[in-house]
Amino acid sequence: MVNILAIDTSTSLASIAVAVGNTIAAESTFSTDRTLSARLVPEIARLLALAGLTVADIDLFAASTGPGSFTGVRGGIATVQGLALACGKPCVGFSSLTLLALNFPLASFPVCTLMDARKSEVYAALFNCSSTFPSAQISDSVMPPGRLLDMLRARAAAPVIFCGDGAARYQNLIADHMEGQAIFAPFPLNIAHASNAIPLALQALESGKALDPSRLLPVYLRASEAEINRDLAAKSGHPTI
Amino acid sequence: MVNILAIDTSTSLASIAVAVGNTIAAESTFSTDRTLSARLVPEIARLLALAGLTVADIDLFAASTGPGSFTGVRGGIATVQGLALACGKPCVGFSSLTLLALNFPLASFPVCTLMDARKSEVYAALFNCSSTFPSAQISDSVMPPGRLLDMLRARAAAPVIFCGDGAARYQNLIADHMEGQAIFAPFPLNIAHASNAIPLALQALESGKALDPSRLLPVYLRASEAEINRDLAAKSGHPTI
Repeated sequence: MVNILAIDTSTSLASIAVAVGNTIAAESTFSTDRTLSARLVPEIARLLALAGLTVADIDLFAASTGPGSFTGVRGGIATVQGLALACGKPCVGFSSLTLLALNFPLASFPVCTLMDARKSEVYAALFNCSSTFPSAQISDSVMPPGRLLDMLRARAAAPVIFCGDGAARYQNLIADHMEGQAIFAPFPLNIAHASNAIPLALQALESGKALDPSRLLPVYLRASEAEINRDLAAKSGHPTI
Repeated sequence: MVNILAIDTSTSLASIAVAVGNTIAAESTFSTDRTLSARLVPEIARLLALAGLTVADIDLFAASTGPGSFTGVRGGIATVQGLALACGKPCVGFSSLTLLALNFPLASFPVCTLMDARKSEVYAALFNCSSTFPSAQISDSVMPPGRLLDMLRARAAAPVIFCGDGAARYQNLIADHMEGQAIFAPFPLNIAHASNAIPLALQALESGKALDPSRLLPVYLRASEAEINRDLAAKSGHPTI
């Protein structure tokens, strides 16, 4: 029996789940605001205790590798790397956009998951969710929402399910562009549940795709603010501090 | 903006969610075993604090009214009644089987949610989930799983999605009876998320269907063990204690 800890810290609502074999033992979803680093480890400890486990009982650590909040993703990955390294156990990474798509098992229509990426852009992907696991039709991308909607409309004129905080943020724009073909998920489905990542993690472990903790890396899709500033400074000839 | 607290205590995994307007602020899912009465109120207090609210900020209290564990459902309803009465706010009840069906928004196939009811029976219902809210095709019932499967097979020979702890408990029986037409949900979807009840509760409030706390009643579907024993004792002429 495999015990798994899965976390998603890519948005302003973090989610942690603990599974004991094929059973979810505990799950917690909480607003992180600016408090993720203070809350994440105590919350993991609380959930493990609820499940009657210690960190040493966990066989596999899974974390969202983004896209999403740089600080959030980095904090989540670092925590999971630390736990896995200390316990000598492997890691699995998963996409935060795939995790959202897992809210729509066996859905009738393609699912577009999108997250507000600030700067008038969204992180987005499109999935066929008609079987147990989502299969990507447009893989994780960052772009202005208008360009995403143009891509979706260039496909067959069929309904698309929209979910994620980007769907809430750009609801009017999406409704206008999609001309009656946009279906908005009930708002609780805009949040991700870490428990839904557990079967993905288990599948990765069973197919030999679990990683050494050092190989669990974030997928940012675009350069961080710090990197952009550094590059701009380099181009302008001003040294960075 | 309406603040809602929703709880489901009908199974061995309790779920609590707090929503602030159209946003889920926090959610917690935890094993209750024999500890529900000790854990429920502190966990509600913890979630409210995480959401930056006090009980007095909640405008509507929602609870699962069953079917499921008698003790669990009774404890959940009593807690919500107490909170609502103390705060002078209304209540909304929802079915635990509908709550499970809300795990399958816009699903391609009918969803049969079933919970182990012990005594070789299941609590079960069948839903069309093709629109935003599930619509019942077989309403909440208690029966032996074989009878449920006969009813399902008497319908069109189309796939049915099975979920809930009853689907896990009777997986082999279901697979045998359904002859290739049974789709089992990934195991994390066998658990209910209280957050999914929030839009239902909001809809009830907006359509004037919220209840006075005294009118929030459990729906057991069958007599409790204590009632059965009392009736047996009455028939046999032995007085009950």
